[in-house]
Amino acid sequence: MRYHKIPDETIRRLPIYLRGLLFSAEQGQESISSRNLADFLGINSWQIRKDFSYFGDFGTPGVGYDIKKLIKQINKILKLRVVRRAALVGVGNLGLAILAYPGFRIYGFDIAAAFDINPKKIGRKIENITIEDVSNLRTLKKRQINLAIITVPQDAAQQTADALVKAGVKGILNFSPHHITVPGKVKVITIDIAMDLARLPYYMPAG
Amino acid sequence: MRYHKIPDETIRRLPIYLRGLLFSAEQGQESISSRNLADFLGINSWQIRKDFSYFGDFGTPGVGYDIKKLIKQINKILKLRVVRRAALVGVGNLGLAILAYPGFRIYGFDIAAAFDINPKKIGRKIENITIEDVSNLRTLKKRQINLAIITVPQDAAQQTADALVKAGVKGILNFSPHHITVPGKVKVITIDIAMDLARLPYYMPAG
Repeated sequence: MRYHKIPDETIRRLPIYLRGLLFSAEQGQESISSRNLADFLGINSWQIRKDFSYFGDFGTPGVGYDIKKLIKQINKILKLRVVRRAALVGVGNLGLAILAYPGFRIYGFDIAAAFDINPKKIGRKIENITIEDVSNLRTLKKRQINLAIITVPQDAAQQTADALVKAGVKGILNFSPHHITVPGKVKVITIDIAMDLARLPYYMPAG
Repeated sequence: MRYHKIPDETIRRLPIYLRGLLFSAEQGQESISSRNLADFLGINSWQIRKDFSYFGDFGTPGVGYDIKKLIKQINKILKLRVVRRAALVGVGNLGLAILAYPGFRIYGFDIAAAFDINPKKIGRKIENITIEDVSNLRTLKKRQINLAIITVPQDAAQQTADALVKAGVKGILNFSPHHITVPGKVKVITIDIAMDLARLPYYMPAG
């Protein structure tokens, strides 16, 4: 099957589907209709059926989709079947919130190292991780960590990205509001935590 | 123009476009091609052209889209042209990060009130906002705040949502990993800060 033909927009939705499917599995469900998954996730059911058809799963009429099988397929496509180690840079409020957030493990991520520039923070232990000086970023390659999360202040984002690229990082999740530039071989996903709020008024009644 | 015909998936992308357009405007650009906007945002250019065509903007061949006009249109569709007051419930690490985050103002949001259950936090002033006891949530309607951000621990999410609905809130941005249930007239957008990391390995080279 030629998984690489899946459009980026479908890839963007796969983690959302995965989240809904994992929740349904936890509730003891074995199958789910596109309609029920749609209601749960707030995505159109035709969109779900179209997305799933990209990897050849058309469900069973009257029964729906096999939840376990779908979870397995999505994990395979997203290459989530191995535990991946990630580094976090910037242990401010957002960094602390992310270190304590249980959701990363669900997707197979282990935040294995945390870095900061503040001498008062270096050496402190948060969620079993000892905060290191950013100069230690150069050890990432040796430690086989090639994913990183940036939670530094806006004006430090680019230099942090540069240091991460130099340390061999191949994927960056950027929570800083600043746009960062990296070489083409490195994938950056920028998260603007305010952006989703911008969709809410559209759905709200006037007044 | 029948804006209500725009698909949810396009609405989901409009804040992303808005973000890219505002950045381009800041850089002094007046127009942008779908190709350049696509490169900047990591979205296919055909998708951008299709989305913009929903509200009748097809750009000018060889010139591209008028940035100012597009920003105006997207703000109108998303109903972002007025400043909206929002409340934040749960002043932990994530709550603190959100209170300090500059991005909300860009989309016209003013976080005007913050609530917590911890007596040690109540009365403290963060970013010009005095933290109030959650029992004060009932005053939201009178204060004309009908948007809320939930950043409480997982097991307090549903009761917080219930209190917000009772207080007349019409839109909720839920950062808690817990699924919450609300009446149909209330719109909830759940943010899983780990979910975007799940898209990264797909784009990374093997090994």
